[in-house]
Amino acid sequence: MNGIYGFGIGADFRSDFSCERLGLKGARLAEMTAIGLAVPPGFTISSAIDGEAARADGLGEALHALESTTGKGFGATENPLLVSVRPSPRVAMPGMLEAVLNLGLNDETVLALARESGNPRFAWDCYARFIQTYGVVVLGIAQYRFEDLTESARGDVAALDGTLLPLESLHYLVGMFRKLVHDETGSPFPQDVLAQLQAVIAAVQASWFTPRVTSYRALHEIPAEWGVAVTVQSMVFGNMGPDSGAGRCATRHPVSGEPVLHGEYLPDAQGTELDDGIRLPDPLGPDESGRLRDSCARLEAHFRDAQDVKFTVQNGVVYCLGCHSSRRTPEAALRIAVDLVEEGVLSRQEAVSRIAPALLVPFLHPTLDPSASRRALTRGLPASPGAATGVLVFSAAEAESRALRAEDVILVRTETSPDDVRGMSVARGVLTTRGGMTSHAAVVARGMARVCVAGASSLRVDADARTLTVGAHVLREGDRVTLDGGTGDVFVGRVATFQPDLPPEVETLLKWAAEIRRMQIRVNADSADDVALARRFGAEGVGLCRTEHMFLHGPRAGLMRGMIIAQTKSERAAALEGLLEVQREDFAAIFRSMPGAPVTIRLFDPPLHEFLPRDDAELADLARSLDRSVVDIKARRDALTEANPMLGHRGCRLGITFPEIYRVQTQAVIEAALAVQIETGVPVIPEIMIPLVGMSSELAVIRDLVADVADEVMRGAKQRVAYLVGTMIELPRAALTADLIAAHADFFSFGTNDLTQATFGFSRDDVGAFLPHYLKAGLLKHDPFVTLDEEGVGALIRLAVEKGRSVKPDLHFGLCGEQGGDPLSIAFCERVGLDYISCSPYRVPVASLAAAQATLALRKQMSETGENP
Amino acid sequence: MNGIYGFGIGADFRSDFSCERLGLKGARLAEMTAIGLAVPPGFTISSAIDGEAARADGLGEALHALESTTGKGFGATENPLLVSVRPSPRVAMPGMLEAVLNLGLNDETVLALARESGNPRFAWDCYARFIQTYGVVVLGIAQYRFEDLTESARGDVAALDGTLLPLESLHYLVGMFRKLVHDETGSPFPQDVLAQLQAVIAAVQASWFTPRVTSYRALHEIPAEWGVAVTVQSMVFGNMGPDSGAGRCATRHPVSGEPVLHGEYLPDAQGTELDDGIRLPDPLGPDESGRLRDSCARLEAHFRDAQDVKFTVQNGVVYCLGCHSSRRTPEAALRIAVDLVEEGVLSRQEAVSRIAPALLVPFLHPTLDPSASRRALTRGLPASPGAATGVLVFSAAEAESRALRAEDVILVRTETSPDDVRGMSVARGVLTTRGGMTSHAAVVARGMARVCVAGASSLRVDADARTLTVGAHVLREGDRVTLDGGTGDVFVGRVATFQPDLPPEVETLLKWAAEIRRMQIRVNADSADDVALARRFGAEGVGLCRTEHMFLHGPRAGLMRGMIIAQTKSERAAALEGLLEVQREDFAAIFRSMPGAPVTIRLFDPPLHEFLPRDDAELADLARSLDRSVVDIKARRDALTEANPMLGHRGCRLGITFPEIYRVQTQAVIEAALAVQIETGVPVIPEIMIPLVGMSSELAVIRDLVADVADEVMRGAKQRVAYLVGTMIELPRAALTADLIAAHADFFSFGTNDLTQATFGFSRDDVGAFLPHYLKAGLLKHDPFVTLDEEGVGALIRLAVEKGRSVKPDLHFGLCGEQGGDPLSIAFCERVGLDYISCSPYRVPVASLAAAQATLALRKQMSETGENP
Repeated sequence: MNGIYGFGIGADFRSDFSCERLGLKGARLAEMTAIGLAVPPGFTISSAIDGEAARADGLGEALHALESTTGKGFGATENPLLVSVRPSPRVAMPGMLEAVLNLGLNDETVLALARESGNPRFAWDCYARFIQTYGVVVLGIAQYRFEDLTESARGDVAALDGTLLPLESLHYLVGMFRKLVHDETGSPFPQDVLAQLQAVIAAVQASWFTPRVTSYRALHEIPAEWGVAVTVQSMVFGNMGPDSGAGRCATRHPVSGEPVLHGEYLPDAQGTELDDGIRLPDPLGPDESGRLRDSCARLEAHFRDAQDVKFTVQNGVVYCLGCHSSRRTPEAALRIAVDLVEEGVLSRQEAVSRIAPALLVPFLHPTLDPSASRRALTRGLPASPGAATGVLVFSAAEAESRALRAEDVILVRTETSPDDVRGMSVARGVLTTRGGMTSHAAVVARGMARVCVAGASSLRVDADARTLTVGAHVLREGDRVTLDGGTGDVFVGRVATFQPDLPPEVETLLKWAAEIRRMQIRVNADSADDVALARRFGAEGVGLCRTEHMFLHGPRAGLMRGMIIAQTKSERAAALEGLLEVQREDFAAIFRSMPGAPVTIRLFDPPLHEFLPRDDAELADLARSLDRSVVDIKARRDALTEANPMLGHRGCRLGITFPEIYRVQTQAVIEAALAVQIETGVPVIPEIMIPLVGMSSELAVIRDLVADVADEVMRGAKQRVAYLVGTMIELPRAALTADLIAAHADFFSFGTNDLTQATFGFSRDDVGAFLPHYLKAGLLKHDPFVTLDEEGVGALIRLAVEKGRSVKPDLHFGLCGEQGGDPLSIAFCERVGLDYISCSPYRVPVASLAAAQATLALRKQMSETGENP
Repeated sequence: MNGIYGFGIGADFRSDFSCERLGLKGARLAEMTAIGLAVPPGFTISSAIDGEAARADGLGEALHALESTTGKGFGATENPLLVSVRPSPRVAMPGMLEAVLNLGLNDETVLALARESGNPRFAWDCYARFIQTYGVVVLGIAQYRFEDLTESARGDVAALDGTLLPLESLHYLVGMFRKLVHDETGSPFPQDVLAQLQAVIAAVQASWFTPRVTSYRALHEIPAEWGVAVTVQSMVFGNMGPDSGAGRCATRHPVSGEPVLHGEYLPDAQGTELDDGIRLPDPLGPDESGRLRDSCARLEAHFRDAQDVKFTVQNGVVYCLGCHSSRRTPEAALRIAVDLVEEGVLSRQEAVSRIAPALLVPFLHPTLDPSASRRALTRGLPASPGAATGVLVFSAAEAESRALRAEDVILVRTETSPDDVRGMSVARGVLTTRGGMTSHAAVVARGMARVCVAGASSLRVDADARTLTVGAHVLREGDRVTLDGGTGDVFVGRVATFQPDLPPEVETLLKWAAEIRRMQIRVNADSADDVALARRFGAEGVGLCRTEHMFLHGPRAGLMRGMIIAQTKSERAAALEGLLEVQREDFAAIFRSMPGAPVTIRLFDPPLHEFLPRDDAELADLARSLDRSVVDIKARRDALTEANPMLGHRGCRLGITFPEIYRVQTQAVIEAALAVQIETGVPVIPEIMIPLVGMSSELAVIRDLVADVADEVMRGAKQRVAYLVGTMIELPRAALTADLIAAHADFFSFGTNDLTQATFGFSRDDVGAFLPHYLKAGLLKHDPFVTLDEEGVGALIRLAVEKGRSVKPDLHFGLCGEQGGDPLSIAFCERVGLDYISCSPYRVPVASLAAAQATLALRKQMSETGENP
């Protein structure tokens, strides 16, 4: 026997509140007792954790104290003490470990219970239940053997609606149960209540090592050595008549979070009956609520969170049997956290720490207008959130070609492959019939923030016939559908969507998060609309504006194509003139949408061939529009084709070999900045970012080019703009030589998509062939494109920060990969000391909250280890 | 005036031998004087380097000492002292800086010289030449003004074959020269010889800063602050009659290296006439040789190398005017180095240090049989060495398809692109009509050790008609040609080639290199033939056997294709059974070719789609042979196609997702090793190498798989083989987590091709679009695929070695990228402490020599810095 700690059995008996020692239930019971709630008294036998020697006499002492407190006698023929014995593991393991109730009954004490309760049927029912549980848990007799006997007893009397059997049937049943025990074990059912108790405690402790529990522990990484504590608690009975009953109660409304008690109550019943579904409980009435209000207030004040409480009423007295933090919807979680702060229970820091950042997601994305009519087609997996409507297309090429004509499309594929990535990027949403939450389609769509419903297996796709069939319903290319990526629903036709307002609790929480976090949050956005949305979400700047995204589709693609097809410098210059105009307008709009805040503009990055049509018909169109031969255009496309475009002629390599591109872009940035500065009177802060730098010489050359152009523009305008020049750190070599590169940079922005690709040697478009297997087999814990790989990629980031800072202490650091919206990755950024993170618009609130939590966590860790923050 | 150091002007006058102070010529003159050679005495005015204060009186003192030594007077009307004034930079700068001879002549001294030499024409000729040189160098008068006057004087007398003008013409010419000087400068030609000297010295020193010299210095990275020293040396005259003359002599034969004097001699001439081509010199006769022999022996003994010596004979006395290490052919260089060791002049270490490793290249590659008849077609650039013969093909697809039928092909393209890389890899040689030594074709061909002639611009390629035209000569697809990649020659038809024996000097030098070097040299080879060749070249093991190369072409490609097309595990297993057979044989042959030495076998690495035909006709063939539909096979190919195959499903990712491939390969390795061990009685040492590991979990999983298979095979055979399991370090993440990976590895082999690709984010197939520009513009010093990038890739290697060794001190390290054959990269490997380097067969001798030099260089550096080697 290990250490024994009492609750409610006298101040002399040692007590404790440690969950490590007493398990969840034991600790909670002790705390509830300590704050003055009516808790049936009892004691907890600790798990082996505190290494105390077994004390054979301990149990006797504890029983003695319990007897004194309750005024009952264990095994006594008058006023007998009954107890429940429950497992109390350190973490909740629902349904894994068995409890035994009504312990202390034997052939004598059952008579006393019958007599004293004035309810013999109740007493004999308790005894029958006890023998059954004991038989199963301690003696290992199969459950069904008891159930069969009960059924036949019940059948004999045609007992109805869950009430107790008649007394004679109960007498008979107890007799049959005792015979079953004797038959199965060769011994009569034990009458010594202390022996009963010792056997039950040992059985509960031993159950920790059963195969079922062992595999559950392995799955949830619960160490075997934690063991399980055991609580022994005096019984109270809700089934003592009409002024008794059992119920449960949430201290706040679990759906809305409103500060009202909410629960259910079953009169004249034991707690187990709440779950067995034979009698339906009533909602909590004003009577019960009134009786519970004070206890609930105490519980919330003590545990500093909304609670779910289990209680039993025995002869009009309310006993609390257990409580835990209440289950709640995201809405309720937010409301509760904010209310608790306003009630003075929680600090803002605590409220911010408590909300899982992912909880915010449902409040952010465009959603289907709930009042809009809809016609459901089918449901798949909710693979990437948001709602989108568009016309069906069955190939990436068709998607691209319709996107060029500014149509909204939904790309449908059996499953997607790297060949579909361009088509996905121009689609509003993606629908697949095969594959799960980590399929290529799902991973890529989440990466590019496209709505995705994956694995809608009831649909049949015929890509050649361009039809989508579900049952008798046939949809064709060009038909309109709507996807709800948050639920997996697919609707026929357009269902109106809207961008919801943030609930006030979210606004409040984000305000607190912004006060707390050290890092700035910026947005990755390429259009003024996205920038404006992100600003509403709390973004404090643009961390990545991809200048080429403006030219991927729509009529502007033609401008870019003209430049690419240009054969001479002067032709290219003419084509660039057109680009200059539109880029200047784009940049000006973005500067206006983020007034007074930094806007990081990345110069041209992707390989040129991405802008040329792959489809032969479109190629012919392009040739016509440029007055060139198809052969010419094809030859140009082929010349630009690369074996590994990700590692090819892109980024600053283009800027160096075709300097006129970067010159025009710089001109557009500076001219737009000057114009908006004059127009608004607010300084514009453009940060010009050079992509794919691997060598300091590259940045040096381009920085000079940028400075030349900027000086010329500013001289001409007779006004200055305080622009910065920095670089993406997205190649291992850049990180390794960050000290050399820093000499030419005002800032570093970690491009963790590309950095992850190069560090792992993973092509994001091609990992579908093995990454799902790696994750499943545990070779990798996280998808490194979602959660930053600290061990490898993180090591490079640390190195680059150290090296960069060593030569330029005021260099500033950001991160703008997809991982910038991931809480684990954000915690890493905080620890490394980055100045900002940048993520897609819809992740901005998530990132803001996660960043605040990271600040709090690091502060806590530092105060624990005695470091200075 | 800076410090002045004498040679041959008395022991009292301070002297020095430092090249930093005196420049090359000044130092050499001092050394030659010191070892007792007849050197006309003089002194050297140091460059500014030693920071000595100007000494106005220094020049006078030095002249005085020179006068005493020679018994002549500077500016004296009897026995006048004439001097030459020469620039003496620290490194040779041929033709950059001007010398002035015969200084000391004026209207008086010329009469004395005429009288005392008994040769007035000689004296007046000297005077005329002096005025001209002075006019050009000091006064800045254009050279052609003097030449015009000389021409007209010469025309007047129709002087023939380079002899002197008649005396009257010389008198006239001197007069005209003096008038020219007066006209141009407004002053008469200076008669004060000291003023002449000071002006000339100042002019030579100032010439260091002329634009021409400044750009030369910039180009050759010669620091401006070195400045230039100036030698002032008493003149001797080879043009004093028949017992005078000028010549030069190499102390060993410059072509063969034989220890005989070899040179040329021009009687009654000054040294400058040796070069002006007006009179042809005679070969060195026995008379001159006899007079030079002792001096040459002294020079060789002192400078410890064969020398080129310039000498002048004045009235039968031989004067040495200068010497430098002799120019020589690679053959001569080798012979001289080995002979000097055998003569006791050099140590083996010194001989090994002196031979540039690249010198070995011409002795290694297959060459055209010199006796074979040949018909030259054209000549291009010698872009990648060796000789190859095969039939012409005009497309990569045709190359692949003929290679499948085991034909030897020569791929002809206008220029190559990444699309041609597969075709190049199966061709014997590559011929292009455009592009230079760093064109895509040249770079890729050298990388894959294919013969290449690039930029053969007289050829016209018509890829559609499949013809190659030069003048009237038309060759068609299937016609045979032969390329000589060492000369750039292209021949019609087959010209016999053979693998030359290594010359004995090369053998000797390689033997010494092997004694000296610390690192082992292994070979990258995939066939027993290549392994055997490399062993003859001194390879001490196989560092990289690419198991998939055996299946890239020829009938075996079918086996691999069967495996790839397999749709189920059991189909794949059946296909693998076929592979097992042939791999076992291949491995056995390789083990036999490298007895008792380690053989590193890399398990399957490339993406599967590389093995499938791209050509539709071949695809149909494949479908037929496998009894599958073309649609099926196409679908499989498309499914395997990747956006960035270099970063895709390859390497150990294949081994993990399709473990049966690695299982079969392991089985083949172990079975072959056991068989050869039994057959030969010599232990076989297979090192199984896992490619593309980025996470320790990958290696752990595969190591278990390998061990399982190996154990099973060895249990079955009741014999053991001492195999190792290690990994390529070819991803940045592997280097960054090398400590974790080392726990599962017996060795690391740095795969610097892939590591360079990932670190830079460069695709080797695609860098052609920008890398040449980067190299030309100086953004990169070296092509990182040729010479290891120490700053970035090298940093990762250092890190991996440190981390690996920190957890496993006996881990061994190798490098098996292309850079393993590059001397600069090898020096890095030595400094980092790798255990071996591995390179292609023909680079083995180069690497061996370079490794020995690296050992010596590091030893020297350590003894200089006091570190322990």
